[in-house]
Amino acid sequence: MTDAPTTAPVAPAASSTSAGEVLAGYLTAQAGVFLRALPQAVGEAGSRPGALPASAAAADDLLRAVRRVGGALHTFAVAFEPAWARESRAELRWLLNLLASEPAYQRRSARLLAALDSLADPGPDAPGMLAGHAGAPKARALLDRQLTLARTRAHTAVLQELRSARLHALADRMTLLAGEVPLAEGCAGEPAEALLPQAAAALGALAEAAELLPLQRSAVPYGGEGLHRLGSGGTPGAGAARTGADSEAVLAADDEPWLRARILLKRARYALEVCGSPVAGLDELDRVLGRHQEASDAAVTAATAARTPRITPATAYVLGVVHADQRLEVEAARYAFGLQWPVLAPGLGHWEGPPAPRKG
Amino acid sequence: MTDAPTTAPVAPAASSTSAGEVLAGYLTAQAGVFLRALPQAVGEAGSRPGALPASAAAADDLLRAVRRVGGALHTFAVAFEPAWARESRAELRWLLNLLASEPAYQRRSARLLAALDSLADPGPDAPGMLAGHAGAPKARALLDRQLTLARTRAHTAVLQELRSARLHALADRMTLLAGEVPLAEGCAGEPAEALLPQAAAALGALAEAAELLPLQRSAVPYGGEGLHRLGSGGTPGAGAARTGADSEAVLAADDEPWLRARILLKRARYALEVCGSPVAGLDELDRVLGRHQEASDAAVTAATAARTPRITPATAYVLGVVHADQRLEVEAARYAFGLQWPVLAPGLGHWEGPPAPRKG
Repeated sequence: MTDAPTTAPVAPAASSTSAGEVLAGYLTAQAGVFLRALPQAVGEAGSRPGALPASAAAADDLLRAVRRVGGALHTFAVAFEPAWARESRAELRWLLNLLASEPAYQRRSARLLAALDSLADPGPDAPGMLAGHAGAPKARALLDRQLTLARTRAHTAVLQELRSARLHALADRMTLLAGEVPLAEGCAGEPAEALLPQAAAALGALAEAAELLPLQRSAVPYGGEGLHRLGSGGTPGAGAARTGADSEAVLAADDEPWLRARILLKRARYALEVCGSPVAGLDELDRVLGRHQEASDAAVTAATAARTPRITPATAYVLGVVHADQRLEVEAARYAFGLQWPVLAPGLGHWEGPPAPRKG
Repeated sequence: MTDAPTTAPVAPAASSTSAGEVLAGYLTAQAGVFLRALPQAVGEAGSRPGALPASAAAADDLLRAVRRVGGALHTFAVAFEPAWARESRAELRWLLNLLASEPAYQRRSARLLAALDSLADPGPDAPGMLAGHAGAPKARALLDRQLTLARTRAHTAVLQELRSARLHALADRMTLLAGEVPLAEGCAGEPAEALLPQAAAALGALAEAAELLPLQRSAVPYGGEGLHRLGSGGTPGAGAARTGADSEAVLAADDEPWLRARILLKRARYALEVCGSPVAGLDELDRVLGRHQEASDAAVTAATAARTPRITPATAYVLGVVHADQRLEVEAARYAFGLQWPVLAPGLGHWEGPPAPRKG
């Protein structure tokens, strides 16, 4: 059951399909995943500090279910009892932020240390450009220390919330969802096709966000733009954050439209899952934008570590190389997105619903 | 006349073509360029230190002629009086190393400072990833100071040699060449076609060197290999330099086959020029490999500057970014070469000589 959310979308029964049944089927299944994964993911409610995550696989399942329920509640908002849907989404977002943090630091640590080890590899077969550099072990130790600290803090934050009334209330909310979905009046009886415009709107929002991406800038590999000329293009609002001319703000503003596209892409994916019509290309693009975000976050970590007081110049130098290397990964992800998106976009633009839930 | 060496190769007269006439025509013209450019390029023989180069354009002409004469003497070696050709090549190489150094430092300085300015640009339109970074002005001043010093040293070395007997002897040698080329016995009477196997051998040497390049490694843009996994491929001999596991030696060994390919490419270009059959695609590839070498040299300069004692960590960090950025340019050049070479190679492999000097 654990990988059901991504590989086997809950398709509505072909014979008797109302919008309410389609949504209830999807949300019930996801709430079930949530409730099964929760105890394994958080361990025995904080009784053994340090034993978290009790199961990394369960934590993954939990986060996947949280994202899918939240996405469905957002995309098909008009179908639900409004106050309930709004509150549920807020609580799911809270849990997502709480639980996603520790594994994210773990992945970031693995990414940065692997990059550093590879850059500093002195082996005769495949040495890296920092092979044997004196700063490499120091930079590695610094990154490891800072990320372990961040991870420990995230872990502590989870432990503090494990017995909270807030988590228990959310679990109760999901128990309710597993039994009966609080639909808006009149929605239950509507035909499944009533969901299609909302799924199409989710695809439309993604397409709109993708149009705003500076794809032209990363169309030619090694344009060097990613390191040199940021911010030509992107969302209009991103300009405000750049006036400070601080390099971190500049990079954050440059990444912002891509992070937004990632959120909208996930929503579009889940909306198509609800309709029983997943698009494999979107899964791939989601992974590309996931790489984008992880490399972007890792670059910030390297830049932040380089501002640690009293480090040696050799350490700082290595962190500069690592920072640029991660920004190069960001560029690579944008290039990959720019290759794949135009292939996928026309199909999504003319999406008119899945074959399955149609009557006649 | 100044750009004649690259744009208007000395084509042999179509009617009366012996191998000796073809070679003499080419070398006489190049020796003429050399003799006209020399006084302008080196100024008034060191009487005004600091006034060099008296003419950058003349220095360019001089270097171009030196490369072409040296290349022709190498490729068509059997056609010349052996001792004279060997000595001439050695003296031309000496002058090339002496004169090329100062403009190379000037170009490197321009390249690195432009890259740094672009990376640290705080402007709202196109900020770089180091926008507003405290280390950027310091790193700029450091690079500027070190490259100015290197350039001054190169300049002094030129001044010291300007009145040397060695330079005068070389000028005499070129004066002789402008009048009469010392051909090997029996060569003067041979038909122009006798030059074709030697030109074809120069093309073959280039093709062989290009086959050894790890083109597969840079075939996919953003493979990240250039920073992470160097030395998989390349010439077998390059492995020896890597056992020290020093990052500079590693990068040098990684670049070595590319620098060698550049030398062979220039020789092939000049050989085709001698035969009156230049190939435009080779000029473009020469520029690509020129970019490769300049970026590679600039990366070394950034890495060396980062080892300056008592610099701040912020300075070192910025130099790390600049180093990685220049290695990225190296990768970009390899990617460009990998795209263009396979298009050009088949034509060169079946090259059987130019249409012009053929009889019948």
